[in-house]
Amino acid sequence: MGRHGKRADMIVHQEQPFNAESDLAALAEPLTPTDAFYVRGHGEVPDLDPGTWRLRVHGAAERELGLSLATLREAFQEREVTATLQCAGNRRAGLIGIRDIPGEAPWGPGATGTATWTGVALADVLALAGPRPEAEHVGFVGADVAPEARPAQRFGGSIPLAKASRPEVLLAWEMNGEPLRPVHGAPVRVVVPGYIGARSVKWLEEIEIRPTPWPGYFQDVVYRLLPEDGVPGAGLGMPLGLVALNSDVVTPRNGDTVPAGSLCVRGHAFAGGERHVTRVDVSLDGASWSTAELLDDQGPWAWRQWRIVLDLAPGEHDIVVRAWDSSAATQPESEAALWNPKGYVNNARPHLRVHAV
Amino acid sequence: MGRHGKRADMIVHQEQPFNAESDLAALAEPLTPTDAFYVRGHGEVPDLDPGTWRLRVHGAAERELGLSLATLREAFQEREVTATLQCAGNRRAGLIGIRDIPGEAPWGPGATGTATWTGVALADVLALAGPRPEAEHVGFVGADVAPEARPAQRFGGSIPLAKASRPEVLLAWEMNGEPLRPVHGAPVRVVVPGYIGARSVKWLEEIEIRPTPWPGYFQDVVYRLLPEDGVPGAGLGMPLGLVALNSDVVTPRNGDTVPAGSLCVRGHAFAGGERHVTRVDVSLDGASWSTAELLDDQGPWAWRQWRIVLDLAPGEHDIVVRAWDSSAATQPESEAALWNPKGYVNNARPHLRVHAV
Repeated sequence: MGRHGKRADMIVHQEQPFNAESDLAALAEPLTPTDAFYVRGHGEVPDLDPGTWRLRVHGAAERELGLSLATLREAFQEREVTATLQCAGNRRAGLIGIRDIPGEAPWGPGATGTATWTGVALADVLALAGPRPEAEHVGFVGADVAPEARPAQRFGGSIPLAKASRPEVLLAWEMNGEPLRPVHGAPVRVVVPGYIGARSVKWLEEIEIRPTPWPGYFQDVVYRLLPEDGVPGAGLGMPLGLVALNSDVVTPRNGDTVPAGSLCVRGHAFAGGERHVTRVDVSLDGASWSTAELLDDQGPWAWRQWRIVLDLAPGEHDIVVRAWDSSAATQPESEAALWNPKGYVNNARPHLRVHAV
Repeated sequence: MGRHGKRADMIVHQEQPFNAESDLAALAEPLTPTDAFYVRGHGEVPDLDPGTWRLRVHGAAERELGLSLATLREAFQEREVTATLQCAGNRRAGLIGIRDIPGEAPWGPGATGTATWTGVALADVLALAGPRPEAEHVGFVGADVAPEARPAQRFGGSIPLAKASRPEVLLAWEMNGEPLRPVHGAPVRVVVPGYIGARSVKWLEEIEIRPTPWPGYFQDVVYRLLPEDGVPGAGLGMPLGLVALNSDVVTPRNGDTVPAGSLCVRGHAFAGGERHVTRVDVSLDGASWSTAELLDDQGPWAWRQWRIVLDLAPGEHDIVVRAWDSSAATQPESEAALWNPKGYVNNARPHLRVHAV
């Protein structure tokens, strides 16, 4: 057990800076254990002293603020939200299987997880600062410096003021009822439910209220969905933001041998919060579909777990899953059709091959 | 030219009650001409006298209201919204091509259109009525009686109070700058941007503020996405509401012979309003994609038109289109995977076969 905590349920992509995803075993429950929650970091974990930490709030606001952790905890109402975070690169490995994506880690389906977050509403802090009429976006800057950024800068990103003003967006200091761990952004991180994980900036130091999106490298250049022939780093393409409808299977595992007959298949699905998961279907032939049972509803900002019992004849099976959202939209069929130069937003229907004996 | 207006740009599915979709030629412009705007009706067009018409607002409210058209026009602020309406059965013909859907009309891609609507915000009327704390939904009842309904009843539907309280939802008496025509709901219809057309109830007579969704036939039994083996009429399945991401090609037409060389392809795409269209791609081989130019932005509640110039070698081509929304989600590949017993929400990527000579 190193400084990043227990690793039993994690698949480590990189040690320095630490990057690891959850083993699927950790995603079987409604809340993901903190020990096994995925970590995406662009730089070294900063070592911040909660006693001297200050959050600076500035920009297109009536007042500039400097908030200590003690003030943050005492001056604002404490709030809790159960929210799924999901890295834009979740399931990239499937896209790499179609065509190589140089320079990007082969994240599997474990770059997502659900936790209960405690802190204060960003909206309450913004109200104290008083956004001026020209304010349209809220930028977050962390304490971590990413070697990859050009020019050298701290990690950051922004969200529209309309989203930042909603009660589910938190400045959080607790995760699953424990103080936030260093690797997850201590002392305070942003939690933006329904947005790509990159906007939930860790080790938060600065909030900038702005007329335009934050112009930093990780908002402007990285985390964009490029056209198939797009050039990474050119600052073009579609800026990512909202999380797309996605689903995955947690048990059994791809490649498993299972007993023929009844098999319970379990997984999760998430529609981004503004929309919710209305149905999950499972197919053995890709043509006829059965509807899974949706389990505990943890509110709009958390994934929905599901299960279904299939009757498997002996032999090879390709189990396909598709989730539906409240617009009656469903997931695209194939990863091949979603390939993009940075390997983001693979939300194709998951496939699972099992051998029933 | 009969009572339903000019028919030159329309494909009539049924004369009594009148049901017709736009010919694609009418969908080439940002606003759809009223003469050619699709009409979906479940019963005879009611003949309502604007002078004696009254709107009754009742249910879980502090005050019951009875509003004449004159009061509606004088007591509330006039508002205008440009909004795309789309029938849940738009593009059903593609699903029927996969497997028959008995009892449902084979609507093509012309059961959608965009108009500028003028009226008052439903929110302002609701505020006058004063929803009580238990209010969660707003039901609309029209004057039209649909022979198909069991038991016999007027057409209607409901939306959540949260949506009904938003400024884009109108009680409209004008369409494209002219008084609403009888076939489009005169004297007053609801316009619910971003929801299936069935919620934009025509010939509005009654608004019922409710703790639960309106329990009528067209909310509770019809307009549901059933599982593949679901039984229409059993009242099960996913209630439809939000419009799913969709797109279509307007020119050229499927089956056209075109000159080899440069070909301008045009169409439209709509992401439902809460999300917007961020990109439209076009492919000649289903594997490599080019990005189309997005044309006039008419605001969040209207489709986005697009165009791209392709270079066609002589021979047969299958042009495929996919739109993306602001969650970086795109359309499902195939109609086959979307078949459902009522034939709703076909939002598969449109295909277009052309022969270049």
